[in-house]
Amino acid sequence: MDLSPLLVEQAVRAALAEDLGHGHDITTRAVVAPGTLARCVLRARKAGILAGMGPAVLAFALCTPDVQIDLNVQDGAQIKPGDTIASIAGEASGILTAERTALNFVIHLSGIATMTHKYVEAVRATNAKICDTRKTLPGLRALQKYAVRTGGGTNHRFGLDDAILIKDNHIAMAGGVETALRLAGKNSGHMVRVEIEVDTLAQLDAVLAYHAQHGGVDVVMLDNFTLPDLKTAVAKVGGRIVTEASGGVTLETVKAIAETGVDYISAGALTHSAPALDLGLDFEDL
Amino acid sequence: MDLSPLLVEQAVRAALAEDLGHGHDITTRAVVAPGTLARCVLRARKAGILAGMGPAVLAFALCTPDVQIDLNVQDGAQIKPGDTIASIAGEASGILTAERTALNFVIHLSGIATMTHKYVEAVRATNAKICDTRKTLPGLRALQKYAVRTGGGTNHRFGLDDAILIKDNHIAMAGGVETALRLAGKNSGHMVRVEIEVDTLAQLDAVLAYHAQHGGVDVVMLDNFTLPDLKTAVAKVGGRIVTEASGGVTLETVKAIAETGVDYISAGALTHSAPALDLGLDFEDL
Amino acid sequence: MDLSPLLVEQAVRAALAEDLGHGHDITTRAVVAPGTLARCVLRARKAGILAGMGPAVLAFALCTPDVQIDLNVQDGAQIKPGDTIASIAGEASGILTAERTALNFVIHLSGIATMTHKYVEAVRATNAKICDTRKTLPGLRALQKYAVRTGGGTNHRFGLDDAILIKDNHIAMAGGVETALRLAGKNSGHMVRVEIEVDTLAQLDAVLAYHAQHGGVDVVMLDNFTLPDLKTAVAKVGGRIVTEASGGVTLETVKAIAETGVDYISAGALTHSAPALDLGLDFEDL
Amino acid sequence: MDLSPLLVEQAVRAALAEDLGHGHDITTRAVVAPGTLARCVLRARKAGILAGMGPAVLAFALCTPDVQIDLNVQDGAQIKPGDTIASIAGEASGILTAERTALNFVIHLSGIATMTHKYVEAVRATNAKICDTRKTLPGLRALQKYAVRTGGGTNHRFGLDDAILIKDNHIAMAGGVETALRLAGKNSGHMVRVEIEVDTLAQLDAVLAYHAQHGGVDVVMLDNFTLPDLKTAVAKVGGRIVTEASGGVTLETVKAIAETGVDYISAGALTHSAPALDLGLDFEDL
Amino acid sequence: MDLSPLLVEQAVRAALAEDLGHGHDITTRAVVAPGTLARCVLRARKAGILAGMGPAVLAFALCTPDVQIDLNVQDGAQIKPGDTIASIAGEASGILTAERTALNFVIHLSGIATMTHKYVEAVRATNAKICDTRKTLPGLRALQKYAVRTGGGTNHRFGLDDAILIKDNHIAMAGGVETALRLAGKNSGHMVRVEIEVDTLAQLDAVLAYHAQHGGVDVVMLDNFTLPDLKTAVAKVGGRIVTEASGGVTLETVKAIAETGVDYISAGALTHSAPALDLGLDFEDL
Amino acid sequence: MDLSPLLVEQAVRAALAEDLGHGHDITTRAVVAPGTLARCVLRARKAGILAGMGPAVLAFALCTPDVQIDLNVQDGAQIKPGDTIASIAGEASGILTAERTALNFVIHLSGIATMTHKYVEAVRATNAKICDTRKTLPGLRALQKYAVRTGGGTNHRFGLDDAILIKDNHIAMAGGVETALRLAGKNSGHMVRVEIEVDTLAQLDAVLAYHAQHGGVDVVMLDNFTLPDLKTAVAKVGGRIVTEASGGVTLETVKAIAETGVDYISAGALTHSAPALDLGLDFEDL
Repeated sequence: MDLSPLLVEQAVRAALAEDLGHGHDITTRAVVAPGTLARCVLRARKAGILAGMGPAVLAFALCTPDVQIDLNVQDGAQIKPGDTIASIAGEASGILTAERTALNFVIHLSGIATMTHKYVEAVRATNAKICDTRKTLPGLRALQKYAVRTGGGTNHRFGLDDAILIKDNHIAMAGGVETALRLAGKNSGHMVRVEIEVDTLAQLDAVLAYHAQHGGVDVVMLDNFTLPDLKTAVAKVGGRIVTEASGGVTLETVKAIAETGVDYISAGALTHSAPALDLGLDFEDL
Repeated sequence: MDLSPLLVEQAVRAALAEDLGHGHDITTRAVVAPGTLARCVLRARKAGILAGMGPAVLAFALCTPDVQIDLNVQDGAQIKPGDTIASIAGEASGILTAERTALNFVIHLSGIATMTHKYVEAVRATNAKICDTRKTLPGLRALQKYAVRTGGGTNHRFGLDDAILIKDNHIAMAGGVETALRLAGKNSGHMVRVEIEVDTLAQLDAVLAYHAQHGGVDVVMLDNFTLPDLKTAVAKVGGRIVTEASGGVTLETVKAIAETGVDYISAGALTHSAPALDLGLDFEDL
Repeated sequence: MDLSPLLVEQAVRAALAEDLGHGHDITTRAVVAPGTLARCVLRARKAGILAGMGPAVLAFALCTPDVQIDLNVQDGAQIKPGDTIASIAGEASGILTAERTALNFVIHLSGIATMTHKYVEAVRATNAKICDTRKTLPGLRALQKYAVRTGGGTNHRFGLDDAILIKDNHIAMAGGVETALRLAGKNSGHMVRVEIEVDTLAQLDAVLAYHAQHGGVDVVMLDNFTLPDLKTAVAKVGGRIVTEASGGVTLETVKAIAETGVDYISAGALTHSAPALDLGLDFEDL
Repeated sequence: MDLSPLLVEQAVRAALAEDLGHGHDITTRAVVAPGTLARCVLRARKAGILAGMGPAVLAFALCTPDVQIDLNVQDGAQIKPGDTIASIAGEASGILTAERTALNFVIHLSGIATMTHKYVEAVRATNAKICDTRKTLPGLRALQKYAVRTGGGTNHRFGLDDAILIKDNHIAMAGGVETALRLAGKNSGHMVRVEIEVDTLAQLDAVLAYHAQHGGVDVVMLDNFTLPDLKTAVAKVGGRIVTEASGGVTLETVKAIAETGVDYISAGALTHSAPALDLGLDFEDL
Repeated sequence: MDLSPLLVEQAVRAALAEDLGHGHDITTRAVVAPGTLARCVLRARKAGILAGMGPAVLAFALCTPDVQIDLNVQDGAQIKPGDTIASIAGEASGILTAERTALNFVIHLSGIATMTHKYVEAVRATNAKICDTRKTLPGLRALQKYAVRTGGGTNHRFGLDDAILIKDNHIAMAGGVETALRLAGKNSGHMVRVEIEVDTLAQLDAVLAYHAQHGGVDVVMLDNFTLPDLKTAVAKVGGRIVTEASGGVTLETVKAIAETGVDYISAGALTHSAPALDLGLDFEDL
Repeated sequence: MDLSPLLVEQAVRAALAEDLGHGHDITTRAVVAPGTLARCVLRARKAGILAGMGPAVLAFALCTPDVQIDLNVQDGAQIKPGDTIASIAGEASGILTAERTALNFVIHLSGIATMTHKYVEAVRATNAKICDTRKTLPGLRALQKYAVRTGGGTNHRFGLDDAILIKDNHIAMAGGVETALRLAGKNSGHMVRVEIEVDTLAQLDAVLAYHAQHGGVDVVMLDNFTLPDLKTAVAKVGGRIVTEASGGVTLETVKAIAETGVDYISAGALTHSAPALDLGLDFEDL
């Protein structure tokens, strides 16, 4: 899993603590005798792309000493209803305590990977790549962006600190495209990509004019362009800058957008609106 | 907002830190002159129920000294496209830095409140109440459950620690309904509700038989029952125990489920699959 | 130990950090040669109920790689002066560094378990159960409530969030018993117990009248009632609601209170005033 | 309050979070209308020394915007039953939410200050000073030691890191009094006091012999000495080293111990066994 | 200060907590009467560039209610011995408690800004820019990189997550320059700059060949090149890629390196070896 | 390593999290195939004293399951250019991810140990000991003071809480040397050393006069004394109090200062201005 185990551990410990609240699983404590063993199977109930087994496995391991977990498939695998994802065996109380937390990670991250995969499939015949945004759920960004990668997408910037994205309001505050780009060039380091959002073809012209003279624009975001305008824009850019389409991107519209020739299509829905992928834990008779 | 401000503050600080990453908003720093003022309006772009203005306001306040925020409507309000939700004025750099974090809270929580409201509306003609589950996103449970309340729903238990819910696997581990209920009664305190999940009418009979003799069952969860079975079950229970239907609950099925006479209908989708509600920040010319 | 190991680990790490302060045990560092081995025995010096070996064992383990700990008895055991509780062997410096922290957990939690056990013994001939309150020491609630369970008591609610307890001031703010109960019924979920405090028999009558008509009262707290009034109250309630006596509960009064027939007796002293149970670590000559 | 406000804030926030658990005070939310005001008075119910108003005031302030708190007396004041300690007015919901947390700090810390004061009074006619130990409750050491100071006591070392205390086991590990003292002198800095525990007069002789030749002993702890031996020990020391008596110190024995002429008497009971001081919050009719 | 106040607050609170250790400033508590006022002046004792007044001011403010701080100069100012930087007035105990923590931030960050400024001055006649590295002190990276900016330098990447830097070992692991660049291009998003380190002119040729065909190289790091080789390298690159010289960069060598025409010169010494800038707090008689 | 492993673990986890930022090492992820193994050697590039292998080893271990680390030398060892310090073998991606964090600890702490060692060597012919100050880098004090010990120095106090140091401003606030010392004696416990700073021989006389009558001064800091005055001061003190010289201490001046006969010489430069010691990780061909 190309996400630091340190970060995964922190997220899983926090999630378990959130569920344990004042300190213990009162149902399991009351009802299940210490030492009772359980064996269960994680199964897909819907088709999709698996993501999040790292935190799930850790959740079980943190609650269940000596738990035995066998993974049938790995993150990124296509799963279909009924598929066995993993077998888990160990002390029942720990498995029951960790179950919901483990599943909450997997169903959410698999939901994102699955939606991403659908977008990626929709544009497969084109050169466009699907990427995410910063429209993520508070506290879950690194995990959600991992799920986007797992689903075949790529990541846009991770935060306010790692790339420059000059949006419409920045342009307005700065006093225009040229000033904004000049300031960005002057005030940013050499390891930072610069993207600028444009809302019209006229603004795009201003960006291209600036770039022709001074360089310094890595990516241009074509925001809420019509399909014809997108096509025109891509032609105007002519490969000199990476193009990214954003706004109004849905599973229905994404293919047509991709066919305009843009390089990247960013969709907030991947992280703020992906429904969970249904998975369940089936306990076996011992 | 009936959620502790201490908890909201912690969540907002963490979300801002997540977005600021290595320490600052490099775009705003590069492009916007210190002291530049901005005025903007938070507007609904889709119809729904507003939720999450508490964290949003705090995000702006933590980034923008002397920010001025006027709320037009409060959490719980029905909003429609174009409605002004709030006006925000202050130093541009702070507002731009906080914008995404503030919106991420509001679009997610309003999404949950909106979906909850739809379920609540669907069952308005019945006595059923809509409630959530523990199928929440890691780290966001308290906020998500607040959004469910804001949308007109009620909350199921908050964690493993605050109520007993004996599920199928607990029953299997304990060795049957009777043993499980006896152990729950013996090992839990007097301030803890006890719910038991049943999958069949036969299991329900066992629960009712136990309860008739020993009491101690507050709620019975009728899991994945057909509509006729649900109706039969409600009749069998006869008001002596609170009934809760779960499994297969969607906006399409919820009304029919409610019409069986169950008291509560729990739906994981409210918190694990609610799409974001579209809202945006429009900056005004100064 | 029916308390999440995650929570215990967090508490023990914090306690060790508190004792280590600026970073190390300067006495052991100065005086004890690295590699020196030690063997010691944890012994009871007073009679009581053991509680807290979980955190104690973890404290030694976190400071002493390869420590060997053999437990003679488990939490909940009755111990008497001189009893060997555990044998500990390993590198001397780690054992000496962890000693005080480990003991601080055990002597405090055993003190609570011991006091609880005395109350429980005092009411053994009755049906009353002994329970705790929220009068706990800041930061130690989950551990203290675990110790109460270990001593044979049961737990009252864990926090403001997991059960409703309408106290005298809530009643006053709400405008009376009926309004308070009606609001509680309307505004709380189905997984939450509702308790109401009454100070007089007249108030109890109001509660019973409400409950007869609307239901919704799980527990009534009879606060600072005289013994005759308690008896009258229990008779009035007639088993329809769980009764809890509180106020003026001491080891001297608890039996008489229990004999009035109340179901639960809550005592803040269990957690805010239990003296430590004397235990010590005796090092052996090697 | 001679304790860093930063530390107090951290302790109070943690205590409120512990009580709020999954996020809010469900009773107050259900029953008390937003905007309801309350006025209440913190009153002593037993006589003692007040300690802990700092955290108490902060607890109210963090939950209740615009709360008004007037302190009648300060930490360290002698209070008697019925005394008004503080008046508090503000939004009812915040006051009710903070009440228990605020009181938990005050009743515990006042309990410690009160017990300390009794010991201090008991030895008033002598030169002995009363001090605490590291037998404190996990996580509460700084606050508890503040309460000891407030009650008129002095503080022993705060942790393993700020002073050297060579105990019996260190001596055994080091191979004798002389070696232990030599190593302590060699391996510790010049800003660190050195204390050594002795269990017999013979050991004391060894300490005095070492000190006569090499210096380096600041304090000698006379552990579990009989009164006659304590007297002999004090005479042997002859004021060249500070003497501290420990072991078997109770309110009954402390005066006789002090009369042997020891400089300090340390008592673990001050922090591990002080019962809470009874205080209560009385709400007034508005 | 272009660094998030949230991050500064966290750093300052942690630093004060580190200094306060077990809870309070025992000297000030013992010696300075509560209510004593103080007035003092922060003065430069050496010449340099000021950096870090943000955390310094916050340290005083967190310890001293109602402190009055007047800044004479701002971060980035050139200061010379004797210059008044700021005047501070308020309660003496708070000022004395915060003094060392405040100064520790300013002397360290000003030391970095000062060293950076010297490097920047040394290359002023050239086009080269001075930048930092990830050779920072644990926990201080964001603050140290702020100081580099304050001194006129620019920032290299902030962490492992925000830009790709393919170093010699990555090349070796990947199996050569071409494979490494191809994998980087394939596996990284469009908002991420790609830099590759080369140790020889031959390696540079491989990079240029790849870039001519596939693009995707933003920056080439010329590591430990001789001056003649650097010059040759710059000529070979011919402006198509940003060049960065690293290795063996000192105040003595930096000008000659810059004169080879490289775009950036990175120096670990800025953050791992900058001596503190001497500043002091002079108290005035009142 | 005589520093709590708990504290080291916390520091290393924080440092890795700082470097990983938004969650992973994007270079290694992009370029190095999972499962690739690496073997490398940590080598000295300059001569000095090694310090910090504890955190370095932990950094590798936390990122690299099954890493094999063989230490050739331990902290405190004298190393010279080319010396092999440690061999590290394991999965390449983890080693590459941890490399910078591990080295950042070792080069900084070894830098401090090395500078300390030079001071210690400079005064070897005298009785003076070299010690540090509280002029440490925020968040790194315990580690830096460990490095000072490793280099042969001793530690001054660790924080505001563990020893009394009455500085010039405290004296001024208190109203003079006598009052300050009297208050310190009265208000501090018996486990706390008391040091007082004097700026003149006249002030020293006042201290000695007080001490002759009342005792209670453990250490006198002779601040910014000329060499002749230092000598006079040492003679005046006559061994009755520990003497410490401070101010203007450099590697050039320290020997002459030591030859005046002072017991301790404190130097802030050890922790605020020690340049890093150059060490590097060389990867081997497999």
